[in-house]
Amino acid sequence: MSDLDIVKPTLIVNKERVRRNIKTISEKAWYSGVRFRPHFKTHQNAMVGDLFREAGIESITASSIDMAKFFADNGWKDITIGFPVNVLQMNDIKSLAREVNLGLLVESIETVKFLGENLDTAADIWIKVDTGYGRTGIDSKKGSRIKDIISETRKFNNLTLKGLLTHAGHTYNAVSEDDIRQIYDDTAEKLQKVRSYLETEGFENIEISIGDTPSCSLVEEFNGIDEIRPGNFVYYDYMQLLLGSCREEDIACAVGCPVVAVHEEKDEAIIHGGAVHLSKEQVRNSNGDISFGAVALPAENGWGKILKNSNVFSISQEHGKVRLDNETLESIKVGSILMVLPVHSCLTANLLKENTVLI
Amino acid sequence: MSDLDIVKPTLIVNKERVRRNIKTISEKAWYSGVRFRPHFKTHQNAMVGDLFREAGIESITASSIDMAKFFADNGWKDITIGFPVNVLQMNDIKSLAREVNLGLLVESIETVKFLGENLDTAADIWIKVDTGYGRTGIDSKKGSRIKDIISETRKFNNLTLKGLLTHAGHTYNAVSEDDIRQIYDDTAEKLQKVRSYLETEGFENIEISIGDTPSCSLVEEFNGIDEIRPGNFVYYDYMQLLLGSCREEDIACAVGCPVVAVHEEKDEAIIHGGAVHLSKEQVRNSNGDISFGAVALPAENGWGKILKNSNVFSISQEHGKVRLDNETLESIKVGSILMVLPVHSCLTANLLKENTVLI
Repeated sequence: MSDLDIVKPTLIVNKERVRRNIKTISEKAWYSGVRFRPHFKTHQNAMVGDLFREAGIESITASSIDMAKFFADNGWKDITIGFPVNVLQMNDIKSLAREVNLGLLVESIETVKFLGENLDTAADIWIKVDTGYGRTGIDSKKGSRIKDIISETRKFNNLTLKGLLTHAGHTYNAVSEDDIRQIYDDTAEKLQKVRSYLETEGFENIEISIGDTPSCSLVEEFNGIDEIRPGNFVYYDYMQLLLGSCREEDIACAVGCPVVAVHEEKDEAIIHGGAVHLSKEQVRNSNGDISFGAVALPAENGWGKILKNSNVFSISQEHGKVRLDNETLESIKVGSILMVLPVHSCLTANLLKENTVLI
Repeated sequence: MSDLDIVKPTLIVNKERVRRNIKTISEKAWYSGVRFRPHFKTHQNAMVGDLFREAGIESITASSIDMAKFFADNGWKDITIGFPVNVLQMNDIKSLAREVNLGLLVESIETVKFLGENLDTAADIWIKVDTGYGRTGIDSKKGSRIKDIISETRKFNNLTLKGLLTHAGHTYNAVSEDDIRQIYDDTAEKLQKVRSYLETEGFENIEISIGDTPSCSLVEEFNGIDEIRPGNFVYYDYMQLLLGSCREEDIACAVGCPVVAVHEEKDEAIIHGGAVHLSKEQVRNSNGDISFGAVALPAENGWGKILKNSNVFSISQEHGKVRLDNETLESIKVGSILMVLPVHSCLTANLLKENTVLI
């Protein structure tokens, strides 16, 4: 690690683990016969994008128009924006639709009408459906509302209705792996019911797209589904480990943080690594403590095993307070590097976009 | 506001309020005869820096070496880095010390020795003291340890011992305005005790520098203090309003967020405005609800009054879920803008550095 020369908070990405994570989900998707359209919001990084390309991926998801532009500029030609259409950025949407095969998310007749009337090239339309997460989308029980939106879509030659899309984000609140599988089954069942209803109403070829990393990691085979869009799996993180979606050795990024003070009498060190690097996302770890990140030491392949009795237990803007076990405390000093496995890698990677190193 | 053309999450800064906030603290500092060295970590913005310059401010605080470099490049010549020295960035510290009057924060003999031996130009040294916040610094009761660090400093001709510096961040946990004043008094008293002890040991001209916005906002006169370094006061935010450090009309920034979905049956709207714009900082509002931001409507001078029964009650990476009162719900649609007063403006301004507009 010393040759990495970490001098300030830096996101270290282990390429071998990224490749393995991509391969695992790719193969599972291939085996199930579903399209794999990974969400790039987690890494937002052109070089990590290249690792997906190496694995044969051509279709991606972005979470904002600006992010879609970024990846279009990096040569991606098939992009779904997995976020309800922001009609205020219509000019950007128009130029994107000219440049790539663009998928857009709608949940109202008004937005469909607006797109139909304003887009001057073709776009794919996905209807956002809420299967229980409760964030956004049309309640899966409201089939007739979904039908009305599809009917509206069909009025416009430039819009192609692709299908139903959901993000079962409630898997993040799951209490067990079985719970996650249960949410997946429930989500798939609800979407298939909507599809059946639409078929009886004469609408054919409706695809189903699902998204969350916990489901995509734990479910062995995707039945009755056409597309998966997980994002976080590329790095995973401490939260996913605690959820049971990944193993420790699947976590593919960590933040190298310089130690700036050691308080031996309190078993604590202060690191340069705070809310502007890690984000304020927190989780309760297996010891029951609030955690802003798990702690490891630098090692040959980036970082070693998580230190069981160490924890980033408090953060402010730039500071992280780390509780350390005695052995680690004795081994570090001001100027040492501690590796922090982030609670939520999407937010951490976003904050450290300009300070990311692939190893 | 329509001429502002907000099309994506954008930090709107009200210059008139910024100027007034600067003036209030400047005048108080002048009246008390203390140096005002505002912390620029909140805004991190060259144009907001210019508003301080207009007000006659010449000395500033930064929270990292990179931030100090940014403001040095913007013409600031007297910068204290209010964060323990990160010895790994010694090359950057050396070039900064050549360029500006640099103040550095230490809390160990080892760091002083390292600086003394490695700096090739002069720097000011502040000793970080912990008066009860418990984050970092030397416990104010450990006078002899502080004395030892000062003695070490005096061995090096390039180091000038300036004094004792603290951040009484525990004012953020205060339960009342009186509580904040009490913490300030306690902090000042503890630092003055250390200074008295050092004087009896023969060390003269030890300055005292304090920092937090709640204290600097509520205390009328700074006695026995030489320097104040608040930062957040430039914008304030929803947290400071709830703490009682500011009035609603002092809050000088808000995030313009496009509405991307309206769920009338749930009294909710979905905005483009999530953890990558607002941060995940949360607070409990006066209704007892978890809040990721207060909500207002766009208005002539940026935004109107906080809507009492509206609230950003949940956020994910890009989405914000907003509970809206009936009147507001009826007045908005997809494509409307909601203004979100951030919980913690420092983190929000950091996230929206590239999307900030001064009005």
